[in-house]
Amino acid sequence: MIHLKLTIAYDGTGLVGWQRQPTGTSVQALLEDALAPLEGGPVVVTAAGRTDAGVHALAQIVSVTLHRAITPRSVKRAANLRLPPAVRVLDAEEVGPEFHARFRAVAKVYRYRIWNGEVLSPFERPFAWHVPWPVLDVEGMDAAAAGLVGQHDFAAFQGTDSNTETTVRRIFSSRVLRASGMEREALVTYEVRGDGFLRHMVRSIVGTLVEVGRGREPVSWTREVLASRDRRRAGRTAPAAGLFLVRVEYE
Amino acid sequence: MIHLKLTIAYDGTGLVGWQRQPTGTSVQALLEDALAPLEGGPVVVTAAGRTDAGVHALAQIVSVTLHRAITPRSVKRAANLRLPPAVRVLDAEEVGPEFHARFRAVAKVYRYRIWNGEVLSPFERPFAWHVPWPVLDVEGMDAAAAGLVGQHDFAAFQGTDSNTETTVRRIFSSRVLRASGMEREALVTYEVRGDGFLRHMVRSIVGTLVEVGRGREPVSWTREVLASRDRRRAGRTAPAAGLFLVRVEYE
Repeated sequence: MIHLKLTIAYDGTGLVGWQRQPTGTSVQALLEDALAPLEGGPVVVTAAGRTDAGVHALAQIVSVTLHRAITPRSVKRAANLRLPPAVRVLDAEEVGPEFHARFRAVAKVYRYRIWNGEVLSPFERPFAWHVPWPVLDVEGMDAAAAGLVGQHDFAAFQGTDSNTETTVRRIFSSRVLRASGMEREALVTYEVRGDGFLRHMVRSIVGTLVEVGRGREPVSWTREVLASRDRRRAGRTAPAAGLFLVRVEYE
Repeated sequence: MIHLKLTIAYDGTGLVGWQRQPTGTSVQALLEDALAPLEGGPVVVTAAGRTDAGVHALAQIVSVTLHRAITPRSVKRAANLRLPPAVRVLDAEEVGPEFHARFRAVAKVYRYRIWNGEVLSPFERPFAWHVPWPVLDVEGMDAAAAGLVGQHDFAAFQGTDSNTETTVRRIFSSRVLRASGMEREALVTYEVRGDGFLRHMVRSIVGTLVEVGRGREPVSWTREVLASRDRRRAGRTAPAAGLFLVRVEYE
């Protein structure tokens, strides 16, 4: 028997998200199906964060137990041979039985990419939200984003179809930046690190920050929306394609 | 009548390259078909460089003449409405009748991307050549690449199906670098600037440099291959997916 921590990356384009669904292809199903031949039977994998349809991961963390004598390196190689190129096991390591990808995570980092240029680069199509105009007030968005740091009830930024015990989460950092460099000046990124995220929370925050960036709402509005705990007050949910799970942290 | 200089970007994945072909979709055909309704008849466009199937462009330059009273801005907008998202007109400007995208170009910059990590990132699939091992000797490749700078007969790096009047070209700069930064350490790029390039020239150079990077050939080998003017001496032609036309320069 071996307990494994897998680091996986995926291009979520065309997938129904992490979680197995009756219709469409999920990352979970692809990974479980790729590992099943190693186990000689069904395998259940657990991810740190259940990303939605179209959301990408640079380093999702997955825990899985196999009842076979097999090395992490063999698991990685065998899984990558069976997985489609859009899903890759970047790393596999043996962990203790107490490791749990979701419950042991202490922080996650998400990045959201906005293409703030008139013409969307062909290379950014499934990886950014195209906001062609106006030129976003990135400083204002960054100031608004900073107002979310700390422990708060994020009910206002929760997807309508969520049900969780508590909507209180702690945000450690929350920044909006315009990428510098010749070919990237149209790229605006939001990066947020927190102890957990509600369903659609990052995308709802981004939709709200973009209202500030467009100049439709003042910087202080983000904190007003937060304090209201009312989903109807927030901006639209930004499209899934711009969202990346960047990193999961453990103690 | 208006003479136009268009700057276009394209994701070459699945396309047969710049030039119109009897089978498959070319960038030229897509662009000519997108402009034809503006002209009310057939349009002929000329590109600075005829990229091959699967090759990408960050800023290809195209010249075209339309026999209508229309602004560059309208041409750009109308073309982008008709083009698929994989091909975008980034810029359109009016130029004099003497402008010719190909004959007036004084320099072009190409970039080739190599993914030198065990596992190919899902986001790099159609945009890099996967060389999983060994860890490439990037310093050696860079030294070998520097040996190509200057005016030389590049017959050794020409595609076998080429026919051009002369195989002499001038290379202004030729560098191999490993990208720094946490998520990019596997990325090795070759960037070359020259007054012109033979068919498959950049990809043949890259195939040759990778032999040096693998330690199979010494740094001096690149210059020996060059001096031989014999295509059979060079390395393999690197895959099209890693190649990007970055920039075209005019006086």
